[in-house]
Amino acid sequence: MLYWEDIQPGSEFATGSITLDKSEILEFAAAFDPQPFHLEDEAGAESIFGGFCASGWHVCALVMRLLADTFERERIAALDSPGVPALRWLKPVYAGDSLTARIAVRECTGAGEPGLGLIRCHIEVSNQDRRLVLRSEYDLLIQRKPERTDA
Amino acid sequence: MLYWEDIQPGSEFATGSITLDKSEILEFAAAFDPQPFHLEDEAGAESIFGGFCASGWHVCALVMRLLADTFERERIAALDSPGVPALRWLKPVYAGDSLTARIAVRECTGAGEPGLGLIRCHIEVSNQDRRLVLRSEYDLLIQRKPERTDA
Repeated sequence: MLYWEDIQPGSEFATGSITLDKSEILEFAAAFDPQPFHLEDEAGAESIFGGFCASGWHVCALVMRLLADTFERERIAALDSPGVPALRWLKPVYAGDSLTARIAVRECTGAGEPGLGLIRCHIEVSNQDRRLVLRSEYDLLIQRKPERTDA
Repeated sequence: MLYWEDIQPGSEFATGSITLDKSEILEFAAAFDPQPFHLEDEAGAESIFGGFCASGWHVCALVMRLLADTFERERIAALDSPGVPALRWLKPVYAGDSLTARIAVRECTGAGEPGLGLIRCHIEVSNQDRRLVLRSEYDLLIQRKPERTDA
């Protein structure tokens, strides 16, 4: 496992990528964000986004998937996120777009509880044209290295 | 329609409420946040959350649904959100919990584009026991009142 002590400011992780299709955009929007520009081609084209596009919260959910897959691949002992100090949607995400993220660790601090440490990550999410679609800070609680009891 | 000019700092909106069940938590987690504590009772019980619980991003998606329904009910001319200046998950959300939100407008500023104004909202989301589960700041672009052309 990669524990809090194994992660330093400057540590970076690249996620895999994920492509979303129109039916997924529609399904998420119908459940969680039924604004017309996420449900209809024409309303999307007439909107500020210039086209039918995914809910910003769908994009966040996809970023979570990229992160969760990365935690598993890198065996990062992530336990929880207390919150998001900042998040900006920079460009719409359209059907067929493929997203990938870069996670850069900025700060590592105590978490006020034994056994836990906090890391603050800077996350940049790009589409297939390497244009940034989302930028955020993201706090994660990470398990500390268990003390050896066999000494 | 309720345009940017119709909304002031101090304006408040109460959303409806939404209840989530275990199958919805599992479906969201399988798609977007397949960490064990969002997929399995036992892993949830052993986790920092003290029980099987919803992904924090599922909670955000449900809050978006509460907001979208409120925009429609109040006829708020919301066009986009540029971002989230801050968001904290305060308590886990468990199967069967019922969420409701209060939206308080804090600032109304220009948006740097004709026809648009920005509002910054403070959002508090509570469960059925009136315990806060999420608190955030949320920026919204609102359409300005169209100029009358029949004068």
